[in-house]
Amino acid sequence: MAFTEFRPLDEKSLIDYIKATPSLSSKLGNKFDDLTIKEVGDGNLNFVYIVFNSSGSFVIKQALPYIRCIGESWPMTKERAYFETLALKEHGRFCPEHTPEVYHFDRTMSLLAMRYIEPPHIILRKGLIAGIEYPLLAEHISEYMANTLFFTSLLFRTTTEHKRDVAEFCGNVELCRLTEQVVFSDPYKISQYNRWTAPYLDRDAEAVREDNLLKLEVAELKSKFCERAQALIHGDLHTGSVMVTPKSTQVIDPEFAFYGPMGFDIGAFLGNLILAFFAQDGHCDQVNDRKAYKEWILKAIEETWNLFHYKFIALWDKHKNGSGEAYLPAIYDNPEVQLLVQKSYMKDLFHDSLGFGAAKMIRRIVGVAHVEDFESITDASKRATCERRALNLAKSILKERRKFEGITEVISAIRQF
Amino acid sequence: MAFTEFRPLDEKSLIDYIKATPSLSSKLGNKFDDLTIKEVGDGNLNFVYIVFNSSGSFVIKQALPYIRCIGESWPMTKERAYFETLALKEHGRFCPEHTPEVYHFDRTMSLLAMRYIEPPHIILRKGLIAGIEYPLLAEHISEYMANTLFFTSLLFRTTTEHKRDVAEFCGNVELCRLTEQVVFSDPYKISQYNRWTAPYLDRDAEAVREDNLLKLEVAELKSKFCERAQALIHGDLHTGSVMVTPKSTQVIDPEFAFYGPMGFDIGAFLGNLILAFFAQDGHCDQVNDRKAYKEWILKAIEETWNLFHYKFIALWDKHKNGSGEAYLPAIYDNPEVQLLVQKSYMKDLFHDSLGFGAAKMIRRIVGVAHVEDFESITDASKRATCERRALNLAKSILKERRKFEGITEVISAIRQF
Repeated sequence: MAFTEFRPLDEKSLIDYIKATPSLSSKLGNKFDDLTIKEVGDGNLNFVYIVFNSSGSFVIKQALPYIRCIGESWPMTKERAYFETLALKEHGRFCPEHTPEVYHFDRTMSLLAMRYIEPPHIILRKGLIAGIEYPLLAEHISEYMANTLFFTSLLFRTTTEHKRDVAEFCGNVELCRLTEQVVFSDPYKISQYNRWTAPYLDRDAEAVREDNLLKLEVAELKSKFCERAQALIHGDLHTGSVMVTPKSTQVIDPEFAFYGPMGFDIGAFLGNLILAFFAQDGHCDQVNDRKAYKEWILKAIEETWNLFHYKFIALWDKHKNGSGEAYLPAIYDNPEVQLLVQKSYMKDLFHDSLGFGAAKMIRRIVGVAHVEDFESITDASKRATCERRALNLAKSILKERRKFEGITEVISAIRQF
Repeated sequence: MAFTEFRPLDEKSLIDYIKATPSLSSKLGNKFDDLTIKEVGDGNLNFVYIVFNSSGSFVIKQALPYIRCIGESWPMTKERAYFETLALKEHGRFCPEHTPEVYHFDRTMSLLAMRYIEPPHIILRKGLIAGIEYPLLAEHISEYMANTLFFTSLLFRTTTEHKRDVAEFCGNVELCRLTEQVVFSDPYKISQYNRWTAPYLDRDAEAVREDNLLKLEVAELKSKFCERAQALIHGDLHTGSVMVTPKSTQVIDPEFAFYGPMGFDIGAFLGNLILAFFAQDGHCDQVNDRKAYKEWILKAIEETWNLFHYKFIALWDKHKNGSGEAYLPAIYDNPEVQLLVQKSYMKDLFHDSLGFGAAKMIRRIVGVAHVEDFESITDASKRATCERRALNLAKSILKERRKFEGITEVISAIRQF
């Protein structure tokens, strides 16, 4: 059996594929009699199989040339598996603690094999819905963001390395287009894909489409997303792309990766924590009022930014005499100017993060893809109330983000809605 | 004689090359007995030959793997000829009136042939030094900038086209690196290449290197230059890259072209007109006090921006229902929001242009490459006085550019220095 051209695998042909691929069969001790294969692709896009036996395990992810959750009517390049692999390897170099290792990649088959992130790891979003606290989450995710973003930016890289990698990831244009459409466009116009908790949010969705100032701000963010190659971003860093236990945090699914604005990743994560916060009132019951958990989420938001800020600046300070070309040591050679440029850089990054985070919140309430945090609230009226609060906060942040001086002001704003 | 691998041509081997190249020899009616070849490369980088006989003419430009004005000690990829050709063709599609046609390109030889821009065309910078008025200059150069920048931006292009072309021009990284060094870095640090009118400007050059706020602003511009793929910019649009007669304006030498911030081109042109303005006091004599000419330059600055603004907005309005992905018609569908986004876009572009223009002025006074406008003032004391005024204006604009609401305020500021 040869796999010389692309074809979608099923559980049976996958076994043949593994047998024909030494780097995979060796992971299983070349034994196939006690093999278990489970299809677990609950995401929107791909087929995912867990493969294990008594000797070892891995995950197989295969991209098909369309979007799984919508079907063949929405074609999508299977080359995304290539860019996911590139991003996993690159981010893995800089943050191996929080990135699954790639064992194998097959471009023809749009297939990658990587470390199986074992139970009790679950998707963070599910943990947030269940009300589980993750004491190391902010520590870990800030470590991931600081490392992946710093080391792929011009703060660490030379222009030559930067332009080479920017060019490579320009190839992931179809996934960028998808983001542009679902985050920056569809929610602000009539689109067949948009949906919301009707009829409760009909007027809210309409208000988003009629808000000129909101459209002005979202255009500026879209232009940054399309034009600004600041770092190799994950591109889809919501709480569904993170697997957690109380002790471990693993970031998966960087198939939207490309050179874009750092704030898009930071905002995606913070924005989805804020969505989780507003969903809590839909999950509380007489046993658990979720008040303490809401406080924990707010603390996680605050700590994520603060730790990111701290770690990012620490990396900058550590590597300020390195080969990064943004701030040459011969120019930015005194503590005053170093402080000045870092303050300005972090302020802009903070405002970018707030803007992108807000845009990601809005699109999850009135756009095509919703979040389980809200979707799992069965009472539509209650769900709409939670969603409206989140939507109104997001609109306010998107328009007023430059007025926020720090993350504590954001926490205060969240409490007010 | 075969030209299967790169070698530098001289006037003799160039004839063999032309004979072996049908697209070139046919331009000359395949006659070589009355051929004239003149080496005219007075630029910093390349060898340039004018070739003509009674039947026709063209210009041959060959890039050598180093910077001509410095020599083999400063290597520079000869691939720049490829990117110059690409840019000439692309800009020529959108603005053929002001861009020389490419007749032939040979990547192996790093050689391009293009339309000979005949006398009485001269380099604009020389015309400005001579005190010649060009009544159509603002009209023409604004047409060139509006067309080349608009049609290569996301206001007209799809994301797919944009990312494809961005990736291609990432290959011109060595020329980008050169700009980064000479515009955004060297003037702000001790560098063996820097020079200035010593000893008069010793303290001024030192002040540039010690000005923390200036360094903060120049870092922000550098980051835009490195990261923001807004349009296919010329990359070196000073008054030495423009050839003029009173009736014609031709833009040459786009070898620094890449996808960068539009304001870098607009600023380069405006900044060099401002340098020409400040140089006039060094060129006046008892016959001509240059007062009227200085007024003409100020008018050209004002009209260039105003006409650019007008033409750019007109293109935007004309193509607002086209395939450009920045502002989808279904979202930006009412006159109020259209006005709002255009105003915001043009305000940012204006401030970018002022910032880049100022940075380009500064580097021409305390960096490696100076301008003939000042260099041709033989009295060093007088030259230093002119340069200091320009430098002080540029520093002020760079730091305060966001406070300027329109070009008339810039003209007032120029008059004050």
